[in-house]
Amino acid sequence: MKEKIGIYLIGAYGAVATCAIVGAKAIAAGLSDERGLVTSSELFRGLDLPPVKDFVFGGCDLRKTSVLEAANEYRQRNNLLPTELLKALAPELKKVNDNIGEGIALGAGATILKIARARQKQNSVLQEVEQFRARLAKFRKDNKLDQVIVVNLASTEPHLDVPPEYKSLKDFEKLMRANAAEKFVPSVLYAYAAFSEDCAFVNFTPSLASGIPALTEMAEKLRLPHSGKDGKTGETLMKTVLAPMFMARNFKVLAWEGYNMLGNRDGAVLDDPSNKRSKTADKDKALRSIIPDPDMHTRVSIEYVPSLDDWKTAWDFIHFEGFLGTKMVLQFIWQGNDSMLASPLALDLARLTAFARRKGEYGPLTHLACFYKNPMGVTEHRFDRQVQILEKYVEKHLAGKKNKQVKK
Amino acid sequence: MKEKIGIYLIGAYGAVATCAIVGAKAIAAGLSDERGLVTSSELFRGLDLPPVKDFVFGGCDLRKTSVLEAANEYRQRNNLLPTELLKALAPELKKVNDNIGEGIALGAGATILKIARARQKQNSVLQEVEQFRARLAKFRKDNKLDQVIVVNLASTEPHLDVPPEYKSLKDFEKLMRANAAEKFVPSVLYAYAAFSEDCAFVNFTPSLASGIPALTEMAEKLRLPHSGKDGKTGETLMKTVLAPMFMARNFKVLAWEGYNMLGNRDGAVLDDPSNKRSKTADKDKALRSIIPDPDMHTRVSIEYVPSLDDWKTAWDFIHFEGFLGTKMVLQFIWQGNDSMLASPLALDLARLTAFARRKGEYGPLTHLACFYKNPMGVTEHRFDRQVQILEKYVEKHLAGKKNKQVKK
Amino acid sequence: MKEKIGIYLIGAYGAVATCAIVGAKAIAAGLSDERGLVTSSELFRGLDLPPVKDFVFGGCDLRKTSVLEAANEYRQRNNLLPTELLKALAPELKKVNDNIGEGIALGAGATILKIARARQKQNSVLQEVEQFRARLAKFRKDNKLDQVIVVNLASTEPHLDVPPEYKSLKDFEKLMRANAAEKFVPSVLYAYAAFSEDCAFVNFTPSLASGIPALTEMAEKLRLPHSGKDGKTGETLMKTVLAPMFMARNFKVLAWEGYNMLGNRDGAVLDDPSNKRSKTADKDKALRSIIPDPDMHTRVSIEYVPSLDDWKTAWDFIHFEGFLGTKMVLQFIWQGNDSMLASPLALDLARLTAFARRKGEYGPLTHLACFYKNPMGVTEHRFDRQVQILEKYVEKHLAGKKNKQVKK
Amino acid sequence: MKEKIGIYLIGAYGAVATCAIVGAKAIAAGLSDERGLVTSSELFRGLDLPPVKDFVFGGCDLRKTSVLEAANEYRQRNNLLPTELLKALAPELKKVNDNIGEGIALGAGATILKIARARQKQNSVLQEVEQFRARLAKFRKDNKLDQVIVVNLASTEPHLDVPPEYKSLKDFEKLMRANAAEKFVPSVLYAYAAFSEDCAFVNFTPSLASGIPALTEMAEKLRLPHSGKDGKTGETLMKTVLAPMFMARNFKVLAWEGYNMLGNRDGAVLDDPSNKRSKTADKDKALRSIIPDPDMHTRVSIEYVPSLDDWKTAWDFIHFEGFLGTKMVLQFIWQGNDSMLASPLALDLARLTAFARRKGEYGPLTHLACFYKNPMGVTEHRFDRQVQILEKYVEKHLAGKKNKQVKK
Repeated sequence: MKEKIGIYLIGAYGAVATCAIVGAKAIAAGLSDERGLVTSSELFRGLDLPPVKDFVFGGCDLRKTSVLEAANEYRQRNNLLPTELLKALAPELKKVNDNIGEGIALGAGATILKIARARQKQNSVLQEVEQFRARLAKFRKDNKLDQVIVVNLASTEPHLDVPPEYKSLKDFEKLMRANAAEKFVPSVLYAYAAFSEDCAFVNFTPSLASGIPALTEMAEKLRLPHSGKDGKTGETLMKTVLAPMFMARNFKVLAWEGYNMLGNRDGAVLDDPSNKRSKTADKDKALRSIIPDPDMHTRVSIEYVPSLDDWKTAWDFIHFEGFLGTKMVLQFIWQGNDSMLASPLALDLARLTAFARRKGEYGPLTHLACFYKNPMGVTEHRFDRQVQILEKYVEKHLAGKKNKQVKK
Repeated sequence: MKEKIGIYLIGAYGAVATCAIVGAKAIAAGLSDERGLVTSSELFRGLDLPPVKDFVFGGCDLRKTSVLEAANEYRQRNNLLPTELLKALAPELKKVNDNIGEGIALGAGATILKIARARQKQNSVLQEVEQFRARLAKFRKDNKLDQVIVVNLASTEPHLDVPPEYKSLKDFEKLMRANAAEKFVPSVLYAYAAFSEDCAFVNFTPSLASGIPALTEMAEKLRLPHSGKDGKTGETLMKTVLAPMFMARNFKVLAWEGYNMLGNRDGAVLDDPSNKRSKTADKDKALRSIIPDPDMHTRVSIEYVPSLDDWKTAWDFIHFEGFLGTKMVLQFIWQGNDSMLASPLALDLARLTAFARRKGEYGPLTHLACFYKNPMGVTEHRFDRQVQILEKYVEKHLAGKKNKQVKK
Repeated sequence: MKEKIGIYLIGAYGAVATCAIVGAKAIAAGLSDERGLVTSSELFRGLDLPPVKDFVFGGCDLRKTSVLEAANEYRQRNNLLPTELLKALAPELKKVNDNIGEGIALGAGATILKIARARQKQNSVLQEVEQFRARLAKFRKDNKLDQVIVVNLASTEPHLDVPPEYKSLKDFEKLMRANAAEKFVPSVLYAYAAFSEDCAFVNFTPSLASGIPALTEMAEKLRLPHSGKDGKTGETLMKTVLAPMFMARNFKVLAWEGYNMLGNRDGAVLDDPSNKRSKTADKDKALRSIIPDPDMHTRVSIEYVPSLDDWKTAWDFIHFEGFLGTKMVLQFIWQGNDSMLASPLALDLARLTAFARRKGEYGPLTHLACFYKNPMGVTEHRFDRQVQILEKYVEKHLAGKKNKQVKK
Repeated sequence: MKEKIGIYLIGAYGAVATCAIVGAKAIAAGLSDERGLVTSSELFRGLDLPPVKDFVFGGCDLRKTSVLEAANEYRQRNNLLPTELLKALAPELKKVNDNIGEGIALGAGATILKIARARQKQNSVLQEVEQFRARLAKFRKDNKLDQVIVVNLASTEPHLDVPPEYKSLKDFEKLMRANAAEKFVPSVLYAYAAFSEDCAFVNFTPSLASGIPALTEMAEKLRLPHSGKDGKTGETLMKTVLAPMFMARNFKVLAWEGYNMLGNRDGAVLDDPSNKRSKTADKDKALRSIIPDPDMHTRVSIEYVPSLDDWKTAWDFIHFEGFLGTKMVLQFIWQGNDSMLASPLALDLARLTAFARRKGEYGPLTHLACFYKNPMGVTEHRFDRQVQILEKYVEKHLAGKKNKQVKK
């Protein structure tokens, strides 16, 4: 019998979640092909991945709106998601709405709360977690789900100096009980609650979430799969594709200057230096991991340009030295729609996580490295090598399936 | 005892050969590091490659000048190869000159002959080959060389519809004896002569050379290593680095438009449509091999812009479709010095070919695929995968060396 | 009493005409502001230009479709002209359709006829002209128009070696009567018919139209205003803005290489070398007029990239030399929607032509130079200087109006 | 008899001054043409400008080196100023050195002093001025000069909140006497000293210099010409060329994001936020003056990228809205050599200032607006209109000359 899978989206009214939901429903209705979904490419043919069209969506958000409204707003700002499509999908989108509740405001930071027009409640840390667990449980029960995957698509959180208590689950839980509110950001509470409710966790954001030692320990103990962090969608993807070439040709990269501009809600959040700090660290880390030269000058700038909306534009200027000290230049300009790049990857991660869980795999899913700017449990940042890890994983499972069939 | 290795450059006064010679001499004199030489990168540490500094250079050209003059001309046009450097290396460069003779004009085409201010002689095909063999033999003898590697760095030849006689060595030789001059281009005669003189052959150009069946057969028979064709230095390198990413992310590439501009002698030759045809075919083939979508619109344009001299500039515009039919754009601008990109690769190929011969390897050297736009005997065009073939080759030899040491 | 003005669009189902009609109707309905209309800018405040919202539209096309269908097709391909807008304007757009008839196929060339799925009829040259005159007269009568302006927005015609008979009206008419069909292109017949029907003429295309001596003579004789040719919308606009700076700073422009890509019907037509020839000549002429240096290397390339639809993308690479022979580079990338750039200018020209006629001005309207790649009767190509000619024209009329008011 | 003109350069060992001196000497020696000098273009033919070749150079700097050393350093970092040229000019460059003394360190700021390896002396404000006046007087006397023009080419000073005492000469002098060191930056002392020594002043930097009311008053009183501020060489030049086009076409500029990178000493100074503040203000002001839309989003970023040396690279992304709300994009990439762009303009300004003084013109030279980012006494920022002011000035003087000749 077919498994019924729930995808619980944190930041459910955000652009990425909106496009993921609309996209999945459009595919289900036969109104869109599966272009852009990695898991729908040739490589995965024959693998029993759960189909995107059967996903049951739910989630939470700090803003108050509806999926349809969010989709309409997105359409108006970006000239995508045509009116006809949204009209056709409206009944389905309304149904999703019933599964969307409130998010955790504790530790979200002033900028996010302001943009969401939300405010932090007087709840204790434990109360926040309990209430969120109750919402997850209700989602599962209401929809008779076999498994639920929590996917973090919220805006980048403010930077938090990781407290020493994050090093073990025991201390982390003690800290929660001590109600040390200033030592928490929502993502760690979301991940803790997800694990407590027997849900796998996907961290598509640069936030801490399940990546802290305490929660890695918890996932291991409860035999739950998780992965993260920070979806690799645009400029960083390009960096991890291009940087290995400079190494392979023995060029000296003198400077790699990356200027990013975007105008969506995410961009507005990143205008707060504390939130930006979490983001740029991930972007630089990937590059420095591939090109370890300490002399290399790098810059990662992310700026808010409202008129661009979701059309992220990046200019990268790469100054490099070749034979006989010759200085040369490579520049690239990336003009991508942020949510249309991110949302299919979020669906891919949900499919692959559901598959992994069904196969009894748990802990950090290292074969998902190619999806992340800063992959958990993996030091490999070169994109093509990460893709090969995934290829081998698929081949292993295809071989296993074949063996089984042979055995029958 | 150390092997004495001769590098015989076809097109010895061209910019690539000039930079290769000056570069090797600068390294030998301790006036330059080995940046840009792939074989000097970390990967090759421990492998007994012949050092660049010990190479003995010779070659041929249709033009009449000297290495030093060619280098000075290059400096004036490109603001590279500083006066001080050329002054310091002048005695060494003059010595190389003694090893440089005339090239084969038969079949070189009107444009090349005009630019070289050369003219075709009344020689028969066999006479051309014999004279060239004699020059190779003299180079070997004069310099007491243990092995000679012929490296083709000449300008792109005019397009030749490959005659059916090229399919077997027997027919090819018959055609030579029949003196069917219009069915020959210099590169195949160079390769034939090289093999006849027990020399390995490196075809860095888009010309036919040793890649035709007759000569592949000859190399196999004489147990000589060879490789080609068309060094992968700039825009095509970028294509084979970037294209796999579009496949991995399941994007549909709608259009990949590549505009190249260059102003060196090579560019002037490419202004002749017949010569250009050989070149653009190689560039497009690599891309279509990685992205087999027949709907993809592509263009490869190469234009002569004299003021650019050796500074090849390419603009690539890549239009691609992602999730929900969203069209996005990646553009890159490559500003590289053509000869400074090509010359270290020519030296790399010479080193690796000399090494392969010493190890008794022969036939097409498929592990050199990452150096070529259109690698012989290999269907893999994805750059990173090609690099891995080379990595495995190096690992194998390093392991072999270790085993030997252990046995002692 | 208010004058009733008819705008008769040649190529009425083309993208430019479609956007012009939809735009005017959207402005009339209060659903769009007048951004992009030059004549709605500050400069023209106080001048009695006929309002765009009062224009009565008609026209002809070789294709058979409707304005609404053309608009819907445009929306689907370009993600512009939102469904809601078209729905609101549908009744108005349907009315325009009643005023749209057949165009002249004689001399349109194989490529245009194929794309339009039209074929040339067995009409004589005179019959074509007569039939077209009848359509213009009907448009005027049906809509009770005070004046009609014919605006040529058709695709670029094939190149025609201008026959000597074009030099005088008498010979031109003789040629028509002789039915020398191969010596005519539609644009000259359109212009002749327009003048015969007492209509002013605007040539927004690179086609010959009213610019030939015979028709200039005719306009003069009949005291009719006209202008052309080839709307200056994108890359050429940029050239005429930037080129004067290089002159003012005494830089030597070594090379100006312009690569244009577009994917609309216009682009498909330009894929025919004969049609392209008319276009690129205009583009290069403007640049060479500003920078007369014969050494300057230039290129104007226009290529058809279907996926771009109406989003014309141009890359210009400008290589220039400054102090002490220093070579420097300016590059620009223009990503504009061709029809959204052209259509408001077509409306501007109609307004200014109607105004000129009301004022009794006739012959080539030289004050409209800033709208054209190749302005009739003007040698000035520098954009800013052209703008100043227009400014002075406006000031003159504003002063005149003020004087009149004073007199009252 | 010919006037003997001295050019006193503040920042004489900086890259701009170095290139100006080398360039003038190369022209004098017939080793370079006058390309890049505005005043050597066609427009000025017939005007009696003092020839660049006759200029006597002197100056001051905080660093200790020589013109030849500075030129050699520049050559090594930028691959310009060829060895042969410097060798040929060495005797002339050494002579210039005799005229170069110490600069004013008072108020130069920590960053500049550190880079110059200089330190502030215990001098009072008045002592600094007196010593500098003495140096100017000596330069004039030693070289028997008819007039001396002081040209400020120093690095950008730290930001100074302009003290109220700068509003009148009287208060300014009182402040000097009060030795209020923290209220002074070197540029105002340089300008004060220059005027006191009967020298005209050219402020090529964004520093305050002669632009403060007190010194404008002084120049007027002493009938001395001066001009400034901040040479318009690259990105801002482009802005003032392009911005008028957006206005003329009635486009709405949504965002104009400018990212500048440079790696010379000037860039290192701008890495100090206080120095950067002076610079970016000028750059933004010009744009906002042309496009007054308060909604327009702008950014001016200047970053230090050491490997670029003097090759300033700017990427400007311009997002604009046209007809029917259509958003379009123009991007440009400027790759210019900063000093080779600036130095000829500095020579131009010296020539035109010398000419103006000879003609008895004084106060702010408003006809020089096209040379400056922030021209003194002029609100016009549109480049082409500024060029026309200069054209009219030249025409007036040519007419005057003609009249004189006629009179004779």
